[in-house]
Amino acid sequence: MTTLSPPASDTPSFEELAHRCLEDCAALADQSEWHEGILRQYLSLPMKAVHELSQNWMAELGMEARVDDAGNLIGRRASAAASAPIVLTGSHLDTVPGAGKYDGVLGFVMGLALARSLGTAELPFHIDVIGFSEEEGVRFSKPYLGSHAITGTFDLEWLSRRDASGFSMKSVIEGFGLVPQRIPSAAYRPSEVIAFVEPHIEQGVVLSRADLPVGVVEAIAGQTRALVQFVGIAGHAGTTPMYPRQDALVAAASWITEVSRRGCEVTGCRATVGYADVSPNVRNVIPDRVTLSLDLRHIDDGIRKQSVGQLFDIARGIAVRDNVEFVVLEKQEQSGVAMDDVIRKQLFQAASDCDLEALDLISGAGHDAGLMASRFPTAMIFIRQPRGISHHPDEDVEASDIAEGLRVLRQWVLNLAEGINSNG
Amino acid sequence: MTTLSPPASDTPSFEELAHRCLEDCAALADQSEWHEGILRQYLSLPMKAVHELSQNWMAELGMEARVDDAGNLIGRRASAAASAPIVLTGSHLDTVPGAGKYDGVLGFVMGLALARSLGTAELPFHIDVIGFSEEEGVRFSKPYLGSHAITGTFDLEWLSRRDASGFSMKSVIEGFGLVPQRIPSAAYRPSEVIAFVEPHIEQGVVLSRADLPVGVVEAIAGQTRALVQFVGIAGHAGTTPMYPRQDALVAAASWITEVSRRGCEVTGCRATVGYADVSPNVRNVIPDRVTLSLDLRHIDDGIRKQSVGQLFDIARGIAVRDNVEFVVLEKQEQSGVAMDDVIRKQLFQAASDCDLEALDLISGAGHDAGLMASRFPTAMIFIRQPRGISHHPDEDVEASDIAEGLRVLRQWVLNLAEGINSNG
Repeated sequence: MTTLSPPASDTPSFEELAHRCLEDCAALADQSEWHEGILRQYLSLPMKAVHELSQNWMAELGMEARVDDAGNLIGRRASAAASAPIVLTGSHLDTVPGAGKYDGVLGFVMGLALARSLGTAELPFHIDVIGFSEEEGVRFSKPYLGSHAITGTFDLEWLSRRDASGFSMKSVIEGFGLVPQRIPSAAYRPSEVIAFVEPHIEQGVVLSRADLPVGVVEAIAGQTRALVQFVGIAGHAGTTPMYPRQDALVAAASWITEVSRRGCEVTGCRATVGYADVSPNVRNVIPDRVTLSLDLRHIDDGIRKQSVGQLFDIARGIAVRDNVEFVVLEKQEQSGVAMDDVIRKQLFQAASDCDLEALDLISGAGHDAGLMASRFPTAMIFIRQPRGISHHPDEDVEASDIAEGLRVLRQWVLNLAEGINSNG
Repeated sequence: MTTLSPPASDTPSFEELAHRCLEDCAALADQSEWHEGILRQYLSLPMKAVHELSQNWMAELGMEARVDDAGNLIGRRASAAASAPIVLTGSHLDTVPGAGKYDGVLGFVMGLALARSLGTAELPFHIDVIGFSEEEGVRFSKPYLGSHAITGTFDLEWLSRRDASGFSMKSVIEGFGLVPQRIPSAAYRPSEVIAFVEPHIEQGVVLSRADLPVGVVEAIAGQTRALVQFVGIAGHAGTTPMYPRQDALVAAASWITEVSRRGCEVTGCRATVGYADVSPNVRNVIPDRVTLSLDLRHIDDGIRKQSVGQLFDIARGIAVRDNVEFVVLEKQEQSGVAMDDVIRKQLFQAASDCDLEALDLISGAGHDAGLMASRFPTAMIFIRQPRGISHHPDEDVEASDIAEGLRVLRQWVLNLAEGINSNG
């Protein structure tokens, strides 16, 4: 469809580019707060090292590198016209504790590989590859700090939040050599942005089961995060008769099985109790207090809210049966986010131009793309992960699948350029 | 029946003695590792303070006080003949976290009140009031350290166990100014001991429901303590489909409800999961490992073992259903222990001499008396607790019930003395 594809003679093959992506991911994985396993929190020392490595790579590619005041690393493949519009790509550089090598990082290095694949081709737009500074929310229990800054929705009141060591976000940003008061100027104007496309490992097995390397995300599922508590009465495990016990853990256990049952009954629902705290947690004392998390996701906000409501009703019923109290301590709602239809169609077209079948996918996990979609035409490309494991050292991805993702991404960019040039 | 009863003119009334017991319990409760709620572990600093307070009280009573090398505090009301046999009484001075004021402590201060009630009466035996150093097993996950020393069954290999802070039992004993290698010499010879009678709050509501102040324990229920683990596979809570999850917490929760059900179905059974540890315990990660305690008690050792076996079978069935592993990490069995028939009859006789009806009771909780029974003629007196709550700040006991317990205990001692004197 375009004379620029396949890669020009001055660029490596897609297979070479994909292998370089794997090497880059491995190099960044070495920059960790932990010796065993990966942890890289917002503006940590290893994040500084990741920026330095990445800036060297950007320099090799002739990109202009900068770090905005929220800590996002941005490399620009500049168009000849300084006032050209911008295509955004990339993903986040922070990780959860005990992370794998690819969640977030792969999307960022694929952005660099895209630039590498384009060689010296002149395009009618800048390409900004963003390494978002904070998506997981580990350090300040506040996810998406990087994309909040890029979308102009960063609330300066968050600067007073403190991490587990007691450092304020403000002092952490200043310690990284940045100026927190200037974060609002990190925002991109919607008028200057053509699109944001985030490549990411799938974190599931839909592509693997369909035997396809690449998917295009239709929507990011909405999420309810809650913290609930069952409160009973402690007592001696050997002397308190089974009736009338008020065992908070028995009540909590009944509810955990109901959460799982609900998740299984409602198509497309993901319902998880990942956290449990038992008090006093002594072997011969009946528990008087159990705190549980609920993480419930569904692409349909109505079904999600209805499911959560039903689960709370079930909990209240269990509480009455077991003569304990049930309290909802916290509840945060995050609506489902649809990806941009125009960009999605362009990505499917690009895949088709590459003779690839791409799958329509739902993302169960949240992503910076969810926030970016509120300001910019946004979509995501998922790369197959053989076993669907993420947030875990066993995360894996095949070079050949990365190569296919890069092929689609580059084709989309070239199609965009051709569209602009032929209209312009 | 004897000229020494009621209290001689040089001794306070039973009501005064009972009120003094309540005051003593309150004074000892102030010696705690926590500001809010009571915790007093083996050889902790507050235990040192409890020893000092108690030694002052013993000195007022003309008792000889000593601390043996396992940390038991022993006050002797000496008979004129140094070679006289010994009557043992008392209970433990350590507590669980968040304890009440009376579990253990009441039995010890009732021993002192017994001495106080006897005034200057000359008896043909010593009375040793023991404040056992460690019954609950909180610090080193090893209960009955004090009575193991008294019965000569303290295994010196336990000295290498470590507490939660990493201190070895050996260093903790030395830090208290004691000599761990001398613990074997803390043992009493069975030939020198007439009996051990442990007074204790009931920790149940049998006396309360029967409207009686005092009970005599027939037997201590046997106990199985186990630690089990369900092991699944971690995964992202938002992206891992409900099938095929291998959620260790869902499996563990199913089993907790079965443990409770089993406890309810088998008459006289007490089945409790008091401890749960979830890994990684992160809100958006499917748990891969849950460790649970099981505490199951029954007076019939056969029924107890059968119930535990059935619960493990149920756990294996759940593990197959949920595609996780089930492992039994630890299992400790403690057989039911019958109290000494002769001493029990003497206690019922003493109650009858006081015009009191005493109730035959089973103890669901373990006690130092369970271990002491292996060497010495042993029995227990239970004092009514209005609401049957124990191991909890709401533990309560009425002065009038303590007075009745003291009346029975003193009458038993006087009857014993009269029996020896008339035979001797």
